[in-house]
Amino acid sequence: MCYGESRPEFEYIDWLQRQVTLTPAVAVGMGDDAAVIKCSSSACVLSTDMLMEGVDFLTDATDPRLIGRKALAVNLSDLAAMAAVPTACLASWAFPKSKGPEFARQVTLGFLELCAEFDCPLVGGDTNTWNQGLAVSVTVVGVPPTTPILRSGAQVGDILIVTGKLGGSSLGRHLTFTPRVREAQRLVDLCTPHAMIDLSDGLAADLHHVLQASGVGARLYRDMIPIHPDAYRLSDGTPLKHALGDGEDFELLLALSPSEWKALQRVWDLSTPLTCIGEIQAESGCWLQDEHGEWQPLPATGWTHSWT
Amino acid sequence: MCYGESRPEFEYIDWLQRQVTLTPAVAVGMGDDAAVIKCSSSACVLSTDMLMEGVDFLTDATDPRLIGRKALAVNLSDLAAMAAVPTACLASWAFPKSKGPEFARQVTLGFLELCAEFDCPLVGGDTNTWNQGLAVSVTVVGVPPTTPILRSGAQVGDILIVTGKLGGSSLGRHLTFTPRVREAQRLVDLCTPHAMIDLSDGLAADLHHVLQASGVGARLYRDMIPIHPDAYRLSDGTPLKHALGDGEDFELLLALSPSEWKALQRVWDLSTPLTCIGEIQAESGCWLQDEHGEWQPLPATGWTHSWT
Repeated sequence: MCYGESRPEFEYIDWLQRQVTLTPAVAVGMGDDAAVIKCSSSACVLSTDMLMEGVDFLTDATDPRLIGRKALAVNLSDLAAMAAVPTACLASWAFPKSKGPEFARQVTLGFLELCAEFDCPLVGGDTNTWNQGLAVSVTVVGVPPTTPILRSGAQVGDILIVTGKLGGSSLGRHLTFTPRVREAQRLVDLCTPHAMIDLSDGLAADLHHVLQASGVGARLYRDMIPIHPDAYRLSDGTPLKHALGDGEDFELLLALSPSEWKALQRVWDLSTPLTCIGEIQAESGCWLQDEHGEWQPLPATGWTHSWT
Repeated sequence: MCYGESRPEFEYIDWLQRQVTLTPAVAVGMGDDAAVIKCSSSACVLSTDMLMEGVDFLTDATDPRLIGRKALAVNLSDLAAMAAVPTACLASWAFPKSKGPEFARQVTLGFLELCAEFDCPLVGGDTNTWNQGLAVSVTVVGVPPTTPILRSGAQVGDILIVTGKLGGSSLGRHLTFTPRVREAQRLVDLCTPHAMIDLSDGLAADLHHVLQASGVGARLYRDMIPIHPDAYRLSDGTPLKHALGDGEDFELLLALSPSEWKALQRVWDLSTPLTCIGEIQAESGCWLQDEHGEWQPLPATGWTHSWT
């Protein structure tokens, strides 16, 4: 990592080091060649995600604090999908020189506010400037539950459950969402999900990931999918399509046995709703009833990058 | 993390997953929301570094494999500076769309060759394309020695030692260097360095980091600094200046007690040379004899980023 005092951007780094609050899990934080974290478990969970301007946000149209916030939030969402407790994070920044140091500080402040909210201190990183667009890469480390919850464990007969409501995140929630870390912790306190994933690509696409990893199929109950008001606010009159395909909901999708689902509903005590949206079946593919009640295959319609 | 099968770049990811060889330390590798690593120690070491085109390499002038190699090598060098053993790595890529998928594969192959060389499997990442320059952010995880070796432990009277030879890395070694992971392991097998750092910013700058962190000063023996032949090949006739200031040598600088240094020289059995280049003193600052034998303060002359 690059830290020191002889480069102009080290004013930023000096400032940054004064902003960071560590936790007892951090043995060595920023300022050395690497960070040292205490391991409270026999395993650790790691995830990394990079955000880039023009792809994940529009720099000039977005509050810089929300850019920083999202850079950590998408990573915490990945930890939530593993039901892992965040321990610490690292961040590499490629700041556009044209935006100057105050922009960098604002991005960072948004990032650090979410660090504080989830007891996930910044322990290291790499700060750079260049003549191109903003790119931020974040790595999070966390402590997994005794048995990691993977995408591959869904079983025939399992109930499919989502947290929160889906669709229309482009109206702003893709920047302001709260990663479902606490919900995931409460879930593993109360039950044993067979499979879990966070909804970044969209319900249809991410469900396909689970089905493919688990070697099963699913039926979705069209009328039970919780549609976010934002999906109705998008004026094209297809809120269900938004709920299925928009992506960046960052809600959790999990597969749970019917008996556990029955018990869970009685004891669930967080304000984030849980909704049963379908079930796992042996027949492959993902199926959704059309407006006439006929079962139709649901393609994975997540948002798509392209090489060209 | 972003993995799945519905996006065009997932052809790349399918290909990538076939290239990766895991180790027993990896419980869950690529393909889920996060990776799970077994912790063989009560602590883990983490470092992250981002490389960007135009800053760390010139995309069109560089073998893409060497770009990928360097992206991991600079991170392994940080682990070496902590005398940590690499466990695994994660990589976030922002590939320029204009370069196409074959370029991405070549960059990745160079990266994976070094993964294999250091038993440091790729366990996760985030693959993206955009219309701007190549940026790669890598995070490495490793196992530290029982007592982490920090920058802050140098003591008055310690001998300053470097591995290898310094200067002129811009002629190519900044891309092809071997991170001193094995040297660091052998060092902690044989002795107890009080402080250690990898030379990324240049000997003068990185020594200043150690001195500042340790609250001490140093004298360098002008005629003992090991100058790399590349520093002589640079035709401006100041090889010592190159050895002191060029940076990207990625050698190790360590502080060791005189008695340990004496013993170490008798048992050091790796081909990488160790050279005594100075000593730690109580008087602050870094001092170097000029050509007349007078002690002069040596500024930290590392390579400098700029916001403007």
